[in-house]
Amino acid sequence: MTAIDLNADLGEGFGRWRLTDDEQLLSVVTSANVACGFHAGDAATMRRVCELAAERGVTIGAQVSYRDLAGFGRRAMDVPPAELAAEVAYQIGALEVFARAAGARVAYVKPHGALYNRVVHDAEQARAVIEGVCLADASLPVLGLPGSRLLELAAAAGLPAVTEAFADRAYTDEGTLVPRDREGAVVSDPDAVVERSVSLARTGAVLAHSGTRIRVRARSLCLHGDTPGAVGLARRVRERLAAAGVRVEAFA
Amino acid sequence: MTAIDLNADLGEGFGRWRLTDDEQLLSVVTSANVACGFHAGDAATMRRVCELAAERGVTIGAQVSYRDLAGFGRRAMDVPPAELAAEVAYQIGALEVFARAAGARVAYVKPHGALYNRVVHDAEQARAVIEGVCLADASLPVLGLPGSRLLELAAAAGLPAVTEAFADRAYTDEGTLVPRDREGAVVSDPDAVVERSVSLARTGAVLAHSGTRIRVRARSLCLHGDTPGAVGLARRVRERLAAAGVRVEAFA
Amino acid sequence: MTAIDLNADLGEGFGRWRLTDDEQLLSVVTSANVACGFHAGDAATMRRVCELAAERGVTIGAQVSYRDLAGFGRRAMDVPPAELAAEVAYQIGALEVFARAAGARVAYVKPHGALYNRVVHDAEQARAVIEGVCLADASLPVLGLPGSRLLELAAAAGLPAVTEAFADRAYTDEGTLVPRDREGAVVSDPDAVVERSVSLARTGAVLAHSGTRIRVRARSLCLHGDTPGAVGLARRVRERLAAAGVRVEAFA
Amino acid sequence: MTAIDLNADLGEGFGRWRLTDDEQLLSVVTSANVACGFHAGDAATMRRVCELAAERGVTIGAQVSYRDLAGFGRRAMDVPPAELAAEVAYQIGALEVFARAAGARVAYVKPHGALYNRVVHDAEQARAVIEGVCLADASLPVLGLPGSRLLELAAAAGLPAVTEAFADRAYTDEGTLVPRDREGAVVSDPDAVVERSVSLARTGAVLAHSGTRIRVRARSLCLHGDTPGAVGLARRVRERLAAAGVRVEAFA
Repeated sequence: MTAIDLNADLGEGFGRWRLTDDEQLLSVVTSANVACGFHAGDAATMRRVCELAAERGVTIGAQVSYRDLAGFGRRAMDVPPAELAAEVAYQIGALEVFARAAGARVAYVKPHGALYNRVVHDAEQARAVIEGVCLADASLPVLGLPGSRLLELAAAAGLPAVTEAFADRAYTDEGTLVPRDREGAVVSDPDAVVERSVSLARTGAVLAHSGTRIRVRARSLCLHGDTPGAVGLARRVRERLAAAGVRVEAFA
Repeated sequence: MTAIDLNADLGEGFGRWRLTDDEQLLSVVTSANVACGFHAGDAATMRRVCELAAERGVTIGAQVSYRDLAGFGRRAMDVPPAELAAEVAYQIGALEVFARAAGARVAYVKPHGALYNRVVHDAEQARAVIEGVCLADASLPVLGLPGSRLLELAAAAGLPAVTEAFADRAYTDEGTLVPRDREGAVVSDPDAVVERSVSLARTGAVLAHSGTRIRVRARSLCLHGDTPGAVGLARRVRERLAAAGVRVEAFA
Repeated sequence: MTAIDLNADLGEGFGRWRLTDDEQLLSVVTSANVACGFHAGDAATMRRVCELAAERGVTIGAQVSYRDLAGFGRRAMDVPPAELAAEVAYQIGALEVFARAAGARVAYVKPHGALYNRVVHDAEQARAVIEGVCLADASLPVLGLPGSRLLELAAAAGLPAVTEAFADRAYTDEGTLVPRDREGAVVSDPDAVVERSVSLARTGAVLAHSGTRIRVRARSLCLHGDTPGAVGLARRVRERLAAAGVRVEAFA
Repeated sequence: MTAIDLNADLGEGFGRWRLTDDEQLLSVVTSANVACGFHAGDAATMRRVCELAAERGVTIGAQVSYRDLAGFGRRAMDVPPAELAAEVAYQIGALEVFARAAGARVAYVKPHGALYNRVVHDAEQARAVIEGVCLADASLPVLGLPGSRLLELAAAAGLPAVTEAFADRAYTDEGTLVPRDREGAVVSDPDAVVERSVSLARTGAVLAHSGTRIRVRARSLCLHGDTPGAVGLARRVRERLAAAGVRVEAFA
């Protein structure tokens, strides 16, 4: 029987502002990518999300980012490697306090936004992220795109490299994501998202943008939580995976 | 034989800016109050200070603050208790990563600036700080002013409450500090500072502003590192304490 | 015929986060208190709100705050007067660029959140705010609570002092607001809010919390825009004022 | 008789931190690039620098930057053009308040750090900077590198494009700066810096890194103020320029 993890970004408010319905999403996903204060996520929110996640048995991961509240971590930055490594470690450590206080622990690391995209190709920044993870805990799994420099370097450093796929994003024939600014980059039909989720989980295959069937390794599916209807869609994905005989469980 | 700790604020730069001569101060003090990013202290600086401190056997403490880079943590803020507790825990956790990576650990907590002054009298904020410390580690010593609400509440929560004194600050007859904006609040004569240090360490007594001899309990002396001549003065204090038969050693 | 201004806080998002329905509110109010980046309000949002306001003939005001994104400007801060004055001027200047580029100008200043509450009683901070306003433009009207130190000092400095009232807040017999943490501090019944608006505008009187009828001078009514139903309620208030023969128009 | 402007970065502290000796530098330069709060420069410092500059007849320019206090504006960022334009305008507006209050005005704009380097080649960001300048004031001169996209686009938009040169930086044969991480990129011998300044001002020529004599158009020379001895060197440059019959005067 195949197993798949469902991860989503959580705790992405800041102070007065909220973005995701953390409480509802935590009743669906198996892994929570918790914002650590650099692109979103104040300390009180981090604490609350960790408590809720621990109560529900959802695995806690550190969603690390460039230091960029104004840009929500979506603006690529040329951060010198030594600074980036330290900033990644800082965020993991801050989250660890709240995870531990809730009786859990930080069980993996996933880069956010522009950093996530950058470390697909940029070996220097990918190495800095891995160095930051190792500063915090040299046994932490890293979640990322199959074939990314990040996962290559994670594996080389002895960290578990965990692959993820996106059921609501179009893929190229080479298995990379169609950039967001291209026509059709995002799959908006809920039925299609559900079907692609099941296909990705059961067969490791999905139709690329061109119509070609391609293979996409993924131990985890990333669900988006910041759109209207996100929670309902996530719930349908989870139900259909179960109905299709896929075991939905955290990787860590 | 009496023992005294010497503590100083370190790592109080931010990005391009530096304030204290961390390297030199670490060759004098026994406890380093490391800034954790809220009033000063970027991640790379925190890492470097922890490495240097660990190399030299200097104990690492978390110097926690209000979130106020523009005001260097010197502007009192009415932070709701739940937010303050979480912010304190966040800072301790972030520092813990670097302490542990350097083979050490965060061994105590000391509030900074306006928060330090506030928790002398403000029970609500003092309680929030203690809650934050306990979230991180319910066995961490707290460093503060004798008689402060902070130390009372620390003791009540089962945390070691460690007293400190200031050789370069004038005291009232009641043993509190003369406010900085009063005439004579700061003792600027280096010889007087050295002499007061020895007196505080050996006899637990010092001349108050009025000339009266008062008792000031202190397991630690706080040295200031952000003035010209600070390192030289710190070194003299340490030498004279040793010469006077006082054992200079960390409390933690 | 009586005239009343309707003001609301606008542009209170930051980067990825939104709070108020700026577009809809701008079709109801006559004065827009635009956030200037210290408690909320990024530069692109400020530009957009100014453009929309100018298109619709809504007067633009600078909603100035403590520097506190994490606390949304709701945490009172002991900012030294010289710093506070400069911070107020900075915010007004930043907004002025966008107002002018849209063919309008900053026509008044209103403090936000904790600063608003503080300058009711705190003469030192009120004086600093007035100094900051005068640095920017010594003829700018200041909007605030009748009887506040802010308006007293504004008038003394030769600035037009404009009074405002809150139809959805309970008043004490002395004409001050019942603190938010007291029972009944907020009037949540929409019909009551509409009726109180008309009463405040037409007769300058309203029922206090005790049931006593009191006088509340107000050239402007503050409408809240950050609750569900806020826009609909604002629209009803405006329609009922018009129906009651009150001219709804900006004070500036 | 040839005329040359001397510009330097000023007000680059933040809160408790200082970087440059603003007071001394203002007695030497003719144009002050004042930090506007995004990479450095708090409101109180901006006010003070503007007052000092106005007193001494030094021209005030807005030194605009990416929003990056932690990186001092030295980390290139992929800021979307609309956001970058608004951020540039915001900074100019904020500074304008203090310039005007001091009886002066913002007389030019110069990008800082990573933004300065980026707009040499990146047309999209250069266009955004020019848009931001025009939002603030469509007649403001822009200071930058000869041949940069920034100056090309400034000229195309009808803004005065003012060239500058660096006497303490090595040039390639093509007239661009040798990147900082290359051997010999910085000219550290004070005598050489003085001589190059005179040569650049009088003949518009300088020896490139290769030893070839090249032409470098420059209406302004940039002096660095953040190194020990910077003020003394700046003073020598100014004296030698005067002795060589060069008129030292602001371009704006």
